[in-house]
Amino acid sequence: MSLTNATPLEVAQAARVGSRRLAVLSTPERNAALTAIHGALVSAKDEVLAANKKDLEDADKAAAGGALSQSLVKRLDLGKPGKYEDMLQGILDVRDLEDPINKVTARTLLDDNLTLSRVTCPIGVLLIIFEARPEVIANISALAIKSGNAAILKGGRESSHSFAAIASVISKALTSTAVPSDCLQLVQTHDVIADLLKQDTYIDLCIPRGGNKLVRYVKDSTSIPVLGHADGICTTYLCADYPADKATKIIVDAKVSYPAGCNALEQLLVDEAALTTTLPVIAEALLQKGVSLRCDPTSLAALQGKLDPHSATLLQPASETDFDTEFLDLILAIKAVPSLDEAITHINTHASHHTDAILTLNAPTANAFLAAIDSSSVYWNTSTRMADGQRYGFGTEVGISTNKIHSRGPVGLEGLTIYKWTIVGDAQVSADYGAGGKQWKHQVLPVLDDEFVAQNEEEREVLRMFRAT
Amino acid sequence: MSLTNATPLEVAQAARVGSRRLAVLSTPERNAALTAIHGALVSAKDEVLAANKKDLEDADKAAAGGALSQSLVKRLDLGKPGKYEDMLQGILDVRDLEDPINKVTARTLLDDNLTLSRVTCPIGVLLIIFEARPEVIANISALAIKSGNAAILKGGRESSHSFAAIASVISKALTSTAVPSDCLQLVQTHDVIADLLKQDTYIDLCIPRGGNKLVRYVKDSTSIPVLGHADGICTTYLCADYPADKATKIIVDAKVSYPAGCNALEQLLVDEAALTTTLPVIAEALLQKGVSLRCDPTSLAALQGKLDPHSATLLQPASETDFDTEFLDLILAIKAVPSLDEAITHINTHASHHTDAILTLNAPTANAFLAAIDSSSVYWNTSTRMADGQRYGFGTEVGISTNKIHSRGPVGLEGLTIYKWTIVGDAQVSADYGAGGKQWKHQVLPVLDDEFVAQNEEEREVLRMFRAT
Repeated sequence: MSLTNATPLEVAQAARVGSRRLAVLSTPERNAALTAIHGALVSAKDEVLAANKKDLEDADKAAAGGALSQSLVKRLDLGKPGKYEDMLQGILDVRDLEDPINKVTARTLLDDNLTLSRVTCPIGVLLIIFEARPEVIANISALAIKSGNAAILKGGRESSHSFAAIASVISKALTSTAVPSDCLQLVQTHDVIADLLKQDTYIDLCIPRGGNKLVRYVKDSTSIPVLGHADGICTTYLCADYPADKATKIIVDAKVSYPAGCNALEQLLVDEAALTTTLPVIAEALLQKGVSLRCDPTSLAALQGKLDPHSATLLQPASETDFDTEFLDLILAIKAVPSLDEAITHINTHASHHTDAILTLNAPTANAFLAAIDSSSVYWNTSTRMADGQRYGFGTEVGISTNKIHSRGPVGLEGLTIYKWTIVGDAQVSADYGAGGKQWKHQVLPVLDDEFVAQNEEEREVLRMFRAT
Repeated sequence: MSLTNATPLEVAQAARVGSRRLAVLSTPERNAALTAIHGALVSAKDEVLAANKKDLEDADKAAAGGALSQSLVKRLDLGKPGKYEDMLQGILDVRDLEDPINKVTARTLLDDNLTLSRVTCPIGVLLIIFEARPEVIANISALAIKSGNAAILKGGRESSHSFAAIASVISKALTSTAVPSDCLQLVQTHDVIADLLKQDTYIDLCIPRGGNKLVRYVKDSTSIPVLGHADGICTTYLCADYPADKATKIIVDAKVSYPAGCNALEQLLVDEAALTTTLPVIAEALLQKGVSLRCDPTSLAALQGKLDPHSATLLQPASETDFDTEFLDLILAIKAVPSLDEAITHINTHASHHTDAILTLNAPTANAFLAAIDSSSVYWNTSTRMADGQRYGFGTEVGISTNKIHSRGPVGLEGLTIYKWTIVGDAQVSADYGAGGKQWKHQVLPVLDDEFVAQNEEEREVLRMFRAT
């Protein structure tokens, strides 16, 4: 990891060269690097927190002047009880996950002594652009090394001291490992993003971690594939048959437990038959939590006069744009829908293909919803807030993707891999087969759950000698 | 399928709406559509071939004037013995492949009565841009419908009559099926590609099928993900221990069996120890097939004076650019390399990450090569011409991808799918878990090889009523 004044082109080229060497390291070699990073960050806690304090002081001043939000200041703070330890534990958690590369995922006998295999491998070079949250450096470094990918990290201005301190610690730690230091490139120079986004010859995948503005800018500015999501407009469709107590529990969790999250609920669609039965119960609970309800005329009419007058000001008519907005706040748009079909069409048209849920006791209705909704996560009788790599059991995530290719939903280590096809043969050639020639066997061979291509010691020695230039 | 004067925006929007309905059709409904298309094309053979004859007459005139190559004229001809029948058989082959969508590929018990599943689904709307080869319309239509994707097809000028005839037949055939006709959009208006490439709101994936120029233009002109490859610079590294007869068989197949193919060999790297032993045998065989050998100084010196004088003019010094060129012709660049490391580095730097091979009897050397080469297909002791969906047992392919994400190598039906995550719960919410709350079970559940989400009749009835707008 380097903090030099290298140009974006040099940074990207160095990462590419490093990536070729990282890709052929063994599982123990990559895991040992994570152990080393963990150990170094344990030892350097005081040093890192001192740097973080400088960022916090700068941020406090900026917040006092109105230039930064208090929630951003909070996200910067690595000194909160348990936060540094969580970051450290995250590195070990990633280390202890199954190796995502060199895994055989398919095998076909094309002919006698002619075997096709599909083997997972790293993507190559990742560009991660993020805003606050200095602990992301450690997370992403761990994920990148574990999956055999080089990473270029571009941090935000607000966390620059923390970023430099953590980077320096990781950099020193890597020198004692088999991982080439060029595999992690730290970029902190200002105004360098545009040039990094042009390095499509050397960078394979870009992952922006930040707000809607950052993601849109990145998507519009590069021909490098971008993994992530711009908007998190999540919806829930409430059917009339679903019990009010369960519905209330789910809706309150989805809206209130972390309104700034991309998986927070932004729209509630209500079956017309539930407008005067279940909806008032849910609405009352939301109003008591301080949630503003922006209702279409039908749902507004159903609720008016039915709620505690103290919270009446929070009951508001919705504007058209409310059904295309990610509020990230204690605001919920509510719309009455006459049928499942209209709910599906509304969601496929107005939601952001992130996470959508249906609440019903009717299996045919629910299964039709699960089939027809075109989103990365679709739920039946649970909260949209479940959309999270840790909750899905991935250990950690690099983000949530609403892309339609490669990786969709919470993206864990598997999303940082691709595969290559290998054939091992004995001088069979294409012209041997086809009209008048030999027939393909195309026999699908069984693959074990944990089948890996692992080099023996002699092969590892050959690979150790390999130095890509 | 429509041949209207709709704008690119209207075409893309109609395909998107159609895609939502196609995505929820059952396997038998999609298969029945392929049967109908097959039957209609059987009946309409004379009509289609008559239209194809017009294209051929136009092309012959253009070729006589030098505006078209004879090889392109040949690719246009649907009347060649067996070609129309191959096209028809291809539709049935695709129909009879396993359904690629609604397949459960992972399942995790998050907690009691809270199950996460990963289910394959269509990508959505494909944009396929192709040059000659009118039979591609039938192939791609079959692949799109089978995988539940809508497709916009933009054909080349040279095959316009064939294209219109086949499209009209398919369009009529679909009216008797459950597949909405908007799911296949035929675009033949000139100069409309640029506007289609702007429809990133409605089009999810673009697949250009044509030469390097077309692919580069498409990649540079759209923010829609592009699947494919611009160059096919395939290499083979010959080690000194590999028998000359087998090496010759492999290299001749790779270079000569179809030089215009993207999987044809363009560069031969030769271990220095093989320069005076194996290389002359291979070179003689290639020269007799009319292959020009463009040699670096070391390999040129090794060959000079050793070959049949009749073919001496085909032995030429290589220029620097020869090692970055896709010849698509009877030309082979040859370079001596002192070590496996240099072979790997040369290939990772100069080849196009398509298909590369090593010829050796030494397992550690071969396995190191397979691990270190960053290409979509990497072979040991076989010809690069093996890189093909039909040869890999995919039934057919939509192309070969050198992308580093989503799908790599020959792309079959699986490459036209993505997945969604579903959770079925019973009112568990995110706030139930974590510090002080419930623990996640994260128990990986077994998934059968052929486990599909299939709707029962009642659910299918709900889906049949669903009309996305």
